Amino acid sequence: MKKIEAIIRPGKFQTLRDRLSSIGIGGLTVTEAAGTGKQKGQTGVFRGTTFQVQLLPKVKVEIVADEHQLDEIIDLIIESCSTGDIGDGKIFISPIEQTIRIRTGERGENAVI
Amino acid sequence: MKKIEAIIRPGKFQTLRDRLSSIGIGGLTVTEAAGTGKQKGQTGVFRGTTFQVQLLPKVKVEIVADEHQLDEIIDLIIESCSTGDIGDGKIFISPIEQTIRIRTGERGENAVI
Amino acid sequence: MKKIEAIIRPGKFQTLRDRLSSIGIGGLTVTEAAGTGKQKGQTGVFRGTTFQVQLLPKVKVEIVADEHQLDEIIDLIIESCSTGDIGDGKIFISPIEQTIRIRTGERGENAVI
Ligand SMILES: Nc1ncnc2c1ncn2[C@@H]1O[C@H](COP(=O)(O)OP(=O)(O)OP(=O)(O)O)[C@@H](O)[C@H]1O
Ligand SMILES: Nc1ncnc2c1ncn2[C@@H]1O[C@H](COP(=O)(O)OP(=O)(O)OP(=O)(O)O)[C@@H](O)[C@H]1O
Ligand SMILES: Nc1ncnc2c1ncn2[C@@H]1O[C@H](COP(=O)(O)OP(=O)(O)OP(=O)(O)O)[C@@H](O)[C@H]1O
Ligand SMILES: [Mg+2]
Ligand SMILES: [Mg+2]
Ligand SMILES: [Mg+2]
Repeated sequence: MKKIEAIIRPGKFQTLRDRLSSIGIGGLTVTEAAGTGKQKGQTGVFRGTTFQVQLLPKVKVEIVADEHQLDEIIDLIIESCSTGDIGDGKIFISPIEQTIRIRTGERGENAVI
Repeated sequence: MKKIEAIIRPGKFQTLRDRLSSIGIGGLTVTEAAGTGKQKGQTGVFRGTTFQVQLLPKVKVEIVADEHQLDEIIDLIIESCSTGDIGDGKIFISPIEQTIRIRTGERGENAVI
Repeated sequence: MKKIEAIIRPGKFQTLRDRLSSIGIGGLTVTEAAGTGKQKGQTGVFRGTTFQVQLLPKVKVEIVADEHQLDEIIDLIIESCSTGDIGDGKIFISPIEQTIRIRTGERGENAVI
């Protein structure tokens, strides 16, 4: 099992969710976040004043899924969330050792779905 | 060390916290989240209109604990957060390689507590 | 690649961010959280009434970085976020198996930066 954590533009969430649903992925958790990528530290000039790139609002989407769906989900996030402009976001993959459905106590692959 | 991440009904948080406290687990982090489980994609009919299952408000509780407490904490979450109805939540277990207490610089098991 | 997750006092975030920026770390994600450490379960007495330590507002800062920067980042968080009083926060280190920049599809070390 893997956790796929995508930090995306808030405006892309609904599209991503619908696309995930269309490939049978229903389980996901969403959190409001803010962040900076590599443009942080870059300065810009606005009306004559130098300014620092600010924290931008982002949405964190977490999907725990079976390893065999990993590539499909990553591809779908890239397709759904790209605009080509800087700030489209990042995807981080990490290991999940166990999943438990609280209602039934089920564990493992049956609990992920 | 393990991270135990439980996505639960908001109304169950206080019970869970008190139960954790009663077994000596004080350290936890809470975040507001929203999500869907496997019922996403299911449609319902409400006043004659088909609707999609919406994002539901959930609370994410993260507990970093020593491995020997893992089963006890999982059991306690299941007991505290089950209602028997769909939507009771999920528990995800992942590895934590190091913990540091910022105030003292302590690391490892001493820092987790 | 590692995820460095720091749960800190909200008032320390700006200092931490500036210090990270000064060593070339721009990428980070911030979330509002709340929590308790080991003082939970401790009771205090306020105006004659016993009370439980409450959830305190904290900021969760997540930085995904290459392993060779890990110690430098941890040291910098300790320096930036310590006050010496209880409640300064915790740092948790966990493995990240892959990072992808959504805009370009880049993976690995090039995507982290
Ligand atoms: N190394 C990182 N660690 C943690 N979060 C990150 C990291 N890099 C980016 N993020 C998160 O992802 C969000 C989007 O990042 P962003 O798309 O700007 O990345 P980038 O590397 O600057 O790529 P681009 O050049 O396409 O803008 C950030 O606002 C932040 O929340
Ligand atoms: N695969 C998953 N990845 C990430 N988050 C998930 C996943 N499955 C569930 N969640 C989170 O857990 C919350 C509760 O899920 P839920 O209890 O409905 O799971 P379920 O598998 O549908 O079980 P049930 O049949 O008991 O409803 C969701 O709102 C979501 O935030
Ligand atoms: N074991 C833990 N699991 C998850 N989150 C934790 C844990 N311990 C602490 N935290 C988070 O870190 C925040 C700060 O914790 P805190 O600094 O009070 O830790 P502590 O161990 O009590 O150290 P101190 O004695 O310096 O107060 C908490 O509010 C909580 O959000
Ligand atoms: Mg960027
Ligand atoms: Mg469900
Ligand atoms: Mg404390």
